[in-house]
Amino acid sequence: MNIPETIRLEADAVCILDQTLLPTVEKYIRLVNIEQVHEAIKYLRVRGAPAIGIAAAMGMYIHMKNVLKDKTNFSAGSIEIFDEFLAEFDKGAGYLASSRPTAVNLTFAINLLREEILVNSRKPLEFIIISLQKKAEEILTNDTNVCRTIGEYGAELIKANMGILTHCNAGSLATSKYGTALAPMYLAKERGISFHVYADETRPLLQGTRLTAFELSRAGIDVTLLCDNMAASLMSQGKIDLIFVGCDRVAANGDTANKIGTLGLAVLAKYYKIPFYVCVPYSTFDPATPNGTAIPIEERDGDEVTTFMYKERLAPERIKVYNPAFDVTPAELITAFVTEKGIKRAFELWENYQVQSTVIDTW
Amino acid sequence: MNIPETIRLEADAVCILDQTLLPTVEKYIRLVNIEQVHEAIKYLRVRGAPAIGIAAAMGMYIHMKNVLKDKTNFSAGSIEIFDEFLAEFDKGAGYLASSRPTAVNLTFAINLLREEILVNSRKPLEFIIISLQKKAEEILTNDTNVCRTIGEYGAELIKANMGILTHCNAGSLATSKYGTALAPMYLAKERGISFHVYADETRPLLQGTRLTAFELSRAGIDVTLLCDNMAASLMSQGKIDLIFVGCDRVAANGDTANKIGTLGLAVLAKYYKIPFYVCVPYSTFDPATPNGTAIPIEERDGDEVTTFMYKERLAPERIKVYNPAFDVTPAELITAFVTEKGIKRAFELWENYQVQSTVIDTW
Repeated sequence: MNIPETIRLEADAVCILDQTLLPTVEKYIRLVNIEQVHEAIKYLRVRGAPAIGIAAAMGMYIHMKNVLKDKTNFSAGSIEIFDEFLAEFDKGAGYLASSRPTAVNLTFAINLLREEILVNSRKPLEFIIISLQKKAEEILTNDTNVCRTIGEYGAELIKANMGILTHCNAGSLATSKYGTALAPMYLAKERGISFHVYADETRPLLQGTRLTAFELSRAGIDVTLLCDNMAASLMSQGKIDLIFVGCDRVAANGDTANKIGTLGLAVLAKYYKIPFYVCVPYSTFDPATPNGTAIPIEERDGDEVTTFMYKERLAPERIKVYNPAFDVTPAELITAFVTEKGIKRAFELWENYQVQSTVIDTW
Repeated sequence: MNIPETIRLEADAVCILDQTLLPTVEKYIRLVNIEQVHEAIKYLRVRGAPAIGIAAAMGMYIHMKNVLKDKTNFSAGSIEIFDEFLAEFDKGAGYLASSRPTAVNLTFAINLLREEILVNSRKPLEFIIISLQKKAEEILTNDTNVCRTIGEYGAELIKANMGILTHCNAGSLATSKYGTALAPMYLAKERGISFHVYADETRPLLQGTRLTAFELSRAGIDVTLLCDNMAASLMSQGKIDLIFVGCDRVAANGDTANKIGTLGLAVLAKYYKIPFYVCVPYSTFDPATPNGTAIPIEERDGDEVTTFMYKERLAPERIKVYNPAFDVTPAELITAFVTEKGIKRAFELWENYQVQSTVIDTW
């Protein structure tokens, strides 16, 4: 199965699939310094919260390796050396974090590397560099393992010849591999089950068209693209047996924020009695947010709707636009959550929950 | 109130607002011969079933006037003259009908003019020409009256400060004036009621963005544009009090075919307990079709979804696409039908129904 690789660490570079060129051009680019990593995150060449976190961690490793190469930066005394090293790290971290200020995964991943530095404060800098490399790769591996486990649980739900609907791109391209909502499809494909996927184009930014349709068809999964407003028509004809979506934040009561359009699908799923699953790592469960009304919803620039990819004007000038990036699906519309710890109903999310730094996935 | 004029008959021309240039350019063009009318209908410079019918009727009048001007076409004897005149009409009618083969209104309107010719077969050709002019203008006036009456009934439903959602463009631009789904808004505005309209952009062809947002804002009505997948979010916040949509065909049991996306709105409306009205002239009620499953649904070219306005490629090559032009909303999801004979529930549509040539509105 040919799942496109989102990101990997090379000896002297972070290598990423440039997602701004998809689906027409499939090109990997090598980011050899922190400026290039910053640019790639800022301009969405790499996107999806887990993938951004991995890119940032790898970017910080490459950066500190570059810093160490230029040894003239450091004075002789060992304490000063460490302090200067840490100061360089913090300077780089602040710069990299500014690439997408609201991406919590980015800061979270960078902090994991910083802890690694502090733990090894008495070790040689060369040793610290190696530990940063290991940590960056561990973040990637952990993400892959979590996604694969979500996929294994979710694949149990997929039976032969099912029609599966998904929205936006909670796929391999948003993570290190497999994704969340698409992971069950990849795992079911691995098991030789045949099924059909319907991918919402996902207005206004068309992640379904550009990314989901790309990665599923590339992996040999049978996929059909549709406009968001066509999902009801498919459901009314009995063509959808299962819905898998990703998620940006799950509140304590199970209310779930995800890409705009998810709520509408959940209501349709209830009406047509179609199981509606949210695929989500535990890191996205946020018990500090009591319910959906407490989740802040980002309203984005109207130009995303009134122009075509910021180029051609489609709407009358000065027209008002409603353009929220997310909506909130109430827990009662969600059949269950497919997590790396099993398939859980809303009230069961507390099982196995461990307090951790909150990571908010922003697909 | 500044409702843009869709179409009018001038001395020697059919004058239309060129809808292919909207919303950025507002330009009227004069169509002085049948070839120009054909081109304008074919390339959607004028669209919406009632407006197409009116354009065709006016176009046939202009055409026959042009034919008569060139009197050398006609021989001396009065019977031959009439037969030749009718033959010229039929030739022109066949040509014009080929501009949009599935637009039933087009043929229907042309037939009304043909009947006018037959009724006046013993009158001078100059008299027949005048009767054609009168009939073409009558078709326009009748359409305006029907739309205005629908608007008057529908306006009764609009209370101060309501939020009203609509889909696609069942507006003035699709008819001679007022439209169907937008007519209640124009009439409520005339009555000084203030309210807010939310217009779905309506993928894939964006009639909401290009046409509805244009004509409502031009008329001074407070309108906000949104992507189709954002409607649920508005409803969940209690911002929608009323939904008005148009309709392409109502079956005998009240099942209703309309622009793709209508069904989804109706399901959402039921969940959020929002009244859902279909605004429709009796000419669109088709008792010969028993129910929704008997309504054929046109599937359109996938390029409408995978490219931007047939220009830029958005999706991977060779991806499958589901692109139905319409969906069917079951009667039980429709609160009522706003017709020119009052507001009717599905089973009440038979009241006042008179057999007539079926006119299928294709917005």
